[in-house]
Amino acid sequence: MSALHESPIDDRASYRAIVRPAGGRHIEVIDQRALPHAFVMTKIASADAAALAIRRMIVRGAPLIGAVGAYGLALALDRDASDAALGRAHAALDATRPTAVNLRWALDRVRHRVTPLAVDARADAAWQEADALCAEDIAINHAIGVHGLELLRDLAARHAGPINVMTHCNAGALATCGFGTATAPLFLAHAAGMALHVWVSETRPRMQGASLTAWELQQRGIPHTLFVDGASGLLMRRGDVDIVIVGADRVARNGDVCNKVGTYEKALAAHDNDVPFYVALPSPTIDWSLASGDAIPIESRSPDEVLTVVGRDEYGQTGGVALALPGTRAINFAFDVTPARLVSGLLTERGIVRDAQHLPAVYPERAHADA
Amino acid sequence: MSALHESPIDDRASYRAIVRPAGGRHIEVIDQRALPHAFVMTKIASADAAALAIRRMIVRGAPLIGAVGAYGLALALDRDASDAALGRAHAALDATRPTAVNLRWALDRVRHRVTPLAVDARADAAWQEADALCAEDIAINHAIGVHGLELLRDLAARHAGPINVMTHCNAGALATCGFGTATAPLFLAHAAGMALHVWVSETRPRMQGASLTAWELQQRGIPHTLFVDGASGLLMRRGDVDIVIVGADRVARNGDVCNKVGTYEKALAAHDNDVPFYVALPSPTIDWSLASGDAIPIESRSPDEVLTVVGRDEYGQTGGVALALPGTRAINFAFDVTPARLVSGLLTERGIVRDAQHLPAVYPERAHADA
Repeated sequence: MSALHESPIDDRASYRAIVRPAGGRHIEVIDQRALPHAFVMTKIASADAAALAIRRMIVRGAPLIGAVGAYGLALALDRDASDAALGRAHAALDATRPTAVNLRWALDRVRHRVTPLAVDARADAAWQEADALCAEDIAINHAIGVHGLELLRDLAARHAGPINVMTHCNAGALATCGFGTATAPLFLAHAAGMALHVWVSETRPRMQGASLTAWELQQRGIPHTLFVDGASGLLMRRGDVDIVIVGADRVARNGDVCNKVGTYEKALAAHDNDVPFYVALPSPTIDWSLASGDAIPIESRSPDEVLTVVGRDEYGQTGGVALALPGTRAINFAFDVTPARLVSGLLTERGIVRDAQHLPAVYPERAHADA
Repeated sequence: MSALHESPIDDRASYRAIVRPAGGRHIEVIDQRALPHAFVMTKIASADAAALAIRRMIVRGAPLIGAVGAYGLALALDRDASDAALGRAHAALDATRPTAVNLRWALDRVRHRVTPLAVDARADAAWQEADALCAEDIAINHAIGVHGLELLRDLAARHAGPINVMTHCNAGALATCGFGTATAPLFLAHAAGMALHVWVSETRPRMQGASLTAWELQQRGIPHTLFVDGASGLLMRRGDVDIVIVGADRVARNGDVCNKVGTYEKALAAHDNDVPFYVALPSPTIDWSLASGDAIPIESRSPDEVLTVVGRDEYGQTGGVALALPGTRAINFAFDVTPARLVSGLLTERGIVRDAQHLPAVYPERAHADA
């Protein structure tokens, strides 16, 4: 069994986004492009395959691409553990996606672990470090869930009927090594018997809400309702939302949150309607080097994702349909930045941080080392 | 030629959403479900067909469904002009869609015109009234365009390069008898040689931005870029938007604006970024009987529109692709309400109204008659 499977914390899921088979020198991941219509595990046995899996969004989600990056480095070192090869693999994996900081953090962590070692000891150490990183990710998310559960219990104590939680995109178990970030409180609350209903924004253009979050909630039997991204404000104005919990791809020292495009508008709507807006934030998602969110690089993806919607056709085949005429210009920024002033609190593994100014005090060892 | 074609104002479009052929006792409309991939005119020769065209969204847009409703009543009276038949047709047409107030206004106007007349004079009078209503719609929209053009000229005077206008859904010529409401200032500005660029939100679930507004702008040669609904806040934060102009389906006396779902979030983002937010408002869209937007009935449509996206497949056929698993629950409110406090001004045919408290003074004859 790998460290991943030795974790004492079990979220009882029937699926894991990433698995390292016992003793194996490869990993297996869910091909998230096939969900919700098909469940396909795909094997990753080289650093190139790991990079491609991130680039093509077979895997996505800030914590998960960090984990795949870490294993990618281990795979590279299995072939060539020289300094030069380490540097090339680090650069190639780091270049796959620009916005989430977890990827760079995970790659740096593995490199830092193996660089002082003899060349022939590096690969084993890299596999161990990647295993440890995944086990920690699960533990971090579980801790986020425990703190978030308290928030939900407080709401439930003042409230008849199910707690209505809105989320955006997928910050679920599929975005991590287990539990998810924004979903961890929901999974724990549901396991504890709390009545929940989750509002799932479909999340154009890639529909991670419709295809991934709705699927995860269905797998776990948690009631949920899908809505188009533009309806979040309406739902909040109607009083149908008790709390918003989203994930993050990178958070600056001042608490500005970079997350899937559309998050900022949900934060504005929450603020306008006095709905608490929380960001589930594992510490590897904090970029201590950035004073504010303005400097976060926003990934610009292919306009085809906007011009075409992919789904399952009436014959059960996966295909795309074009929405606009050929040649129509489209823009496709994948993320936006929500200013800290709109965030009620950061749900970290060390508790709820309501004022981002306190982040360095919560993580003194990170704030000083990385800044 | 019908009155529709006698209008002295020509927007030089190669298309019209509604046409009454000279001397004809029927109308022809663009089947808007086929755009942008195919241009199909369809004949409406009965009140039932008019009701079905509205209900199935062959035609849509608050002013246009008012016009189709008015002609629908004329078509009904061609068959039976009795009081009972008039009442039945009025009720059937009024029941097709709940949110836009223009439909009820147009039906009431035709009924009011013909009720005092002898039964055998009613049908001709109804056709005349519907023609007049369409001609007035074009004139109203042109006037909105003239006032809006001044806004754009003011922006251009303080600005290098093209003016970046964001709009939502389709408040274009396709939503009206001509010119459109939100688009009228753009069409006049473009005709006057002003450099423009239009940000078009795709407008889930039915994609009226991608399929209709982008098509109209392409027909007229106005540069434009499509974006997903969740990206409007990001674009405003980046400083890429100079002004937002949207249409409306119903506006309360206090200036609360009911429009396509997603409008409220755009207004919030505009407010948070000091981007002027204007609503193009022909007077038939004002509901003088409502003190605020809270009482406006919000149409709830089929969840299938959320669960499935319709477009053109790789074989050139129109089809739908499913986004989520069968049985997934979805909600589909078609409109939302933007509070008046977020609106910079109402672009009416009588000028720009910056404070909705002044609306009754601008329309004294309506405010007192209808309240």
